[in-house]
Amino acid sequence: MRVAIQGIVGSFHHIASNHWYENLPEQNIEYIPCETFEAVFSALAQKQADQAVIAIENSLYGSISEVYDLLKEYHESYSVSIIGELSERIHQNLIVLPGSTLEKITTVFSHPVALAQSSDFLEKHLPNAQKVEYYDTAASVAHIVELQDTAVAAIGSALSAQLANLPVLHAAIENDHHNYTRFLVIAPHATAPAKSDKASLVLQTTHQKAALYTALGVFAEAGVNLTKLESRPIIGKVWKYQFYLDAEAAGEPLYNVITKLVASNCRVLLLGEYMAEATTYED
Amino acid sequence: MRVAIQGIVGSFHHIASNHWYENLPEQNIEYIPCETFEAVFSALAQKQADQAVIAIENSLYGSISEVYDLLKEYHESYSVSIIGELSERIHQNLIVLPGSTLEKITTVFSHPVALAQSSDFLEKHLPNAQKVEYYDTAASVAHIVELQDTAVAAIGSALSAQLANLPVLHAAIENDHHNYTRFLVIAPHATAPAKSDKASLVLQTTHQKAALYTALGVFAEAGVNLTKLESRPIIGKVWKYQFYLDAEAAGEPLYNVITKLVASNCRVLLLGEYMAEATTYED
Repeated sequence: MRVAIQGIVGSFHHIASNHWYENLPEQNIEYIPCETFEAVFSALAQKQADQAVIAIENSLYGSISEVYDLLKEYHESYSVSIIGELSERIHQNLIVLPGSTLEKITTVFSHPVALAQSSDFLEKHLPNAQKVEYYDTAASVAHIVELQDTAVAAIGSALSAQLANLPVLHAAIENDHHNYTRFLVIAPHATAPAKSDKASLVLQTTHQKAALYTALGVFAEAGVNLTKLESRPIIGKVWKYQFYLDAEAAGEPLYNVITKLVASNCRVLLLGEYMAEATTYED
Repeated sequence: MRVAIQGIVGSFHHIASNHWYENLPEQNIEYIPCETFEAVFSALAQKQADQAVIAIENSLYGSISEVYDLLKEYHESYSVSIIGELSERIHQNLIVLPGSTLEKITTVFSHPVALAQSSDFLEKHLPNAQKVEYYDTAASVAHIVELQDTAVAAIGSALSAQLANLPVLHAAIENDHHNYTRFLVIAPHATAPAKSDKASLVLQTTHQKAALYTALGVFAEAGVNLTKLESRPIIGKVWKYQFYLDAEAAGEPLYNVITKLVASNCRVLLLGEYMAEATTYED
């Protein structure tokens, strides 16, 4: 099976994918590295990949709006659906060439989110180093291998250091240890997995007063809990919004809620049904 | 009065500010240009500016999450409040040095959002030009004046071209003409303006089921319409969210709603009361 990921081998997308697919040991997985989120969806649309694993939100950074927009676009155009979710604890590491020290480092490469997540460490220990944005953490590690300069460092996963055979100068340099990224597993023309108990929807309400409240009431009356509500602009309607909802329901109870919403003139798009990840998070 | 803005003179922040402060002709306005959103808030905190004008959302791009986070942080630490709002129609323009033509251009500088808003034009007319991100549209125009190279262009406002005395090679190159940015006027230790009829709040609900639905019900029962609902992660609580709400209420009716929310164990932060902008948008 070919799986598209944003980033290269050693990236957090790769690590999350490994954790997902190790539960399917009968599958031989080939990763298709992509530079951008759009390229990941495009790989599915062009049948260059069978599934993809894509970050949707980070517990410190928030939602990745671009991925929300792409999910809707590619669901409508190419029937791409969500078939699973998983969270990954994110540790950032300062990775260098052998023989480098903090004193030698003048430039640090990484993905902008990884640089932001490590800003306290960088400010304290490398205040004068230039921070250069790169499209992927693991690719920034591969880049410093190419440069062969002990004055450059990268920020990435422990796996990316291991794959490049480079030392980790400082481990776990993220600002806050409550640092998790939630990933979605997506595929075109997929059927909902057995034992699905969660769903992701896009909701467009009428423009009447309290329309969102009324729509949420349909979920509440059915006893369906919502775990996420994200608003995005409706393009072409200035200051009008649509809502991306994650609901703890699937199958008949979910379809009953959708039927009621549609009957009250809401537009509903079902992005997928899947098994909710049952995880507890360290405080 | 000193007003901090993100960007320099000729930026969209400057244009929006001019429209706001032209209603206060008795005031002598001095603009304090800032490279980042954080620098704008910092200028208020350090008393280098009396007020600031800051973009909060764009009708094509969506909310600017960083500004939501900064509003809460600086409200709590420095009593920075919202005192007004206004929307600005955004037209992007391809600005060049005299004598330049589309055929000569190899590099285009601008703010990443302006580059994204002009992506269709760039793909059609300048598919091979390098797109270079700059911190501000107007500063990218000033930058091409420094470079004095007819192979470089910038994307920015008509005002930024006029101020730099440069020609607009193509006007209104934005992908979609429903392109508005909403700005907030903010100030530390401000009292709510007379005739306020709108407010911005941060709401943290209990973690009971249907907690958001119940909280929205308090607004609905009071007949208070919500114009915006934005979720942001609560740092330190993995996959727990707080909500930024814009409500069409101020004064007593608003305080009654807040009192009821607090009585039902919600945490509420009032970011400011102000006059809602009464504007119709072209379809």
